[in-house]
Amino acid sequence: MTITPDYTIHRDKGHYGWNRDIAPVCTVAPGSVVTIETVDASGGQLNRNSTLDEVAALDFDKVNPVTGPVFVEGAEPGDALKVTILDFAPSGWGWTAIIPGFGLLADRFSEPALHIWEYDPDAMAPAAYVSNIRVPLKPFPGTIGVSPAETGDHSVVNPRNVGGNMDTRDLSAGTELHLPVQVPGALFSMGDAHAAQGDGEVCGTAIESPMDITVKLELVKSMKLNFPRFSTPGPVSTHFDAKGYEVCMGIGPDLMTSAKNAVSDMVDLVSVKAGISPPEAYMLCSVCGDLRISEIVDMPDWIVSFYFPKVVLG
Amino acid sequence: MTITPDYTIHRDKGHYGWNRDIAPVCTVAPGSVVTIETVDASGGQLNRNSTLDEVAALDFDKVNPVTGPVFVEGAEPGDALKVTILDFAPSGWGWTAIIPGFGLLADRFSEPALHIWEYDPDAMAPAAYVSNIRVPLKPFPGTIGVSPAETGDHSVVNPRNVGGNMDTRDLSAGTELHLPVQVPGALFSMGDAHAAQGDGEVCGTAIESPMDITVKLELVKSMKLNFPRFSTPGPVSTHFDAKGYEVCMGIGPDLMTSAKNAVSDMVDLVSVKAGISPPEAYMLCSVCGDLRISEIVDMPDWIVSFYFPKVVLG
Repeated sequence: MTITPDYTIHRDKGHYGWNRDIAPVCTVAPGSVVTIETVDASGGQLNRNSTLDEVAALDFDKVNPVTGPVFVEGAEPGDALKVTILDFAPSGWGWTAIIPGFGLLADRFSEPALHIWEYDPDAMAPAAYVSNIRVPLKPFPGTIGVSPAETGDHSVVNPRNVGGNMDTRDLSAGTELHLPVQVPGALFSMGDAHAAQGDGEVCGTAIESPMDITVKLELVKSMKLNFPRFSTPGPVSTHFDAKGYEVCMGIGPDLMTSAKNAVSDMVDLVSVKAGISPPEAYMLCSVCGDLRISEIVDMPDWIVSFYFPKVVLG
Repeated sequence: MTITPDYTIHRDKGHYGWNRDIAPVCTVAPGSVVTIETVDASGGQLNRNSTLDEVAALDFDKVNPVTGPVFVEGAEPGDALKVTILDFAPSGWGWTAIIPGFGLLADRFSEPALHIWEYDPDAMAPAAYVSNIRVPLKPFPGTIGVSPAETGDHSVVNPRNVGGNMDTRDLSAGTELHLPVQVPGALFSMGDAHAAQGDGEVCGTAIESPMDITVKLELVKSMKLNFPRFSTPGPVSTHFDAKGYEVCMGIGPDLMTSAKNAVSDMVDLVSVKAGISPPEAYMLCSVCGDLRISEIVDMPDWIVSFYFPKVVLG
């Protein structure tokens, strides 16, 4: 880490789900730089030696812990918390899984699958998968958010207008994220770090990899955002796009159905091109392929396209 | 044009809508290079001197003509027509409009609007909009497809599994597109050229610009595609991404609603940042901003993000 934070929040200071009554683990002034140690999305149930049996046995009450919450002095409902993503200290390992009942193609892929990744946390060179496949890395927090206003417990699985489990791959180093504040102090938490992911996170998991993440927390008073908003410092796809993309399209009146059709066709295409099994291709699509809406106005049929980066196949 | 085609199909050889019984205007062998002159999406009802009144008076029976169809010898149902996009001869002008009742935010923008663009068809430098805004150009055919199997007339407005009005911005020079063949000879047609567009074409129109497009037509026997598929020769966003993106997110259980929320918030943001009216911002979003699905697995809420390229604002 090249940045010296004002505070470090250790990984044992976490919570499951969101609740405005969870006591803050730290109170900081606006402008503070905070390093947050994150636990992987399994909450430590999986490790670099895990096997398939452990995926099938996952306790879902213990998934996706976040570290926090951090109370930001002066934050009030209607403000925005500006989070600048500064730096990552990755662990060097991660996992990707097919979890039965979860993922865009849950109907097609009903059996669990697991891949353990090893990567160089300093060089952050593309990570080896099966065969000769290598996946470029670009780390980000899968879950990053503040507390919802409504009292009581709220699941961490789904994202909300206050952020949370957004699984949005461009929340990477240099990006400035604005989150709508709904409770005094904002109550900021973060977790579920990913070493790589494509837009959509189609199989339901990314390269799930514990890492420490350093952010700067600032306030914008009375910004009154409807949803999170972010700004990237430069191009977002240069790690993927050098050799172009294979693209499968889904065309029809329902965006979700078209997304499934596009990804399912791509799984078949990648499986053949790379000589890997369909489940392996599905997990690969999740960590590097992008879902885009190519057309959303030509009534009554829209197009969702899935972009697979050719560079991954060598 | 640097490529000498085997055939040129002139712009008067066109049709409205799809019908397998439309007589071919040309029969070509697989491997032929064909230049197709396209008419703009208004079918010539708008020109570089048009005013707002002409948008309100558009005859929708005459919109989106395509030039063709071209009969490709040997093409049979189950084959794929491989279309390599080779070259463009742009006209140097185009139009973008808000057409009442059409576009992603038709409920918000009910009044017609029109912008006429002038650009250098040789240099293809970014085209001036209002204020200091300039939009990078990357031409492609908005409508490119083959005849559906089903007899009778079929609207040209919506895309189909045989292609058609796909309005997909990466069908640009160098891209190889595969279309599912459903009738003998494929019956290939093309039109509706765009000088620039973002993913989604959110206001319903792009930079609608007549141009001549040269393609190579080949056959892949028995490919049995479900939908069109394409492959790009390199990065697809380098004309937009140098300075990064402003990104607005829509979060919720319905992808369409989230797309609308993300675009509506971006219209407001761009309007303020650029000092232009919301309708001007909406049209600008359509010609350069991208709709992406950031997350589609965190039940029951998904994220659609709208990416606006900062480079456009200077």
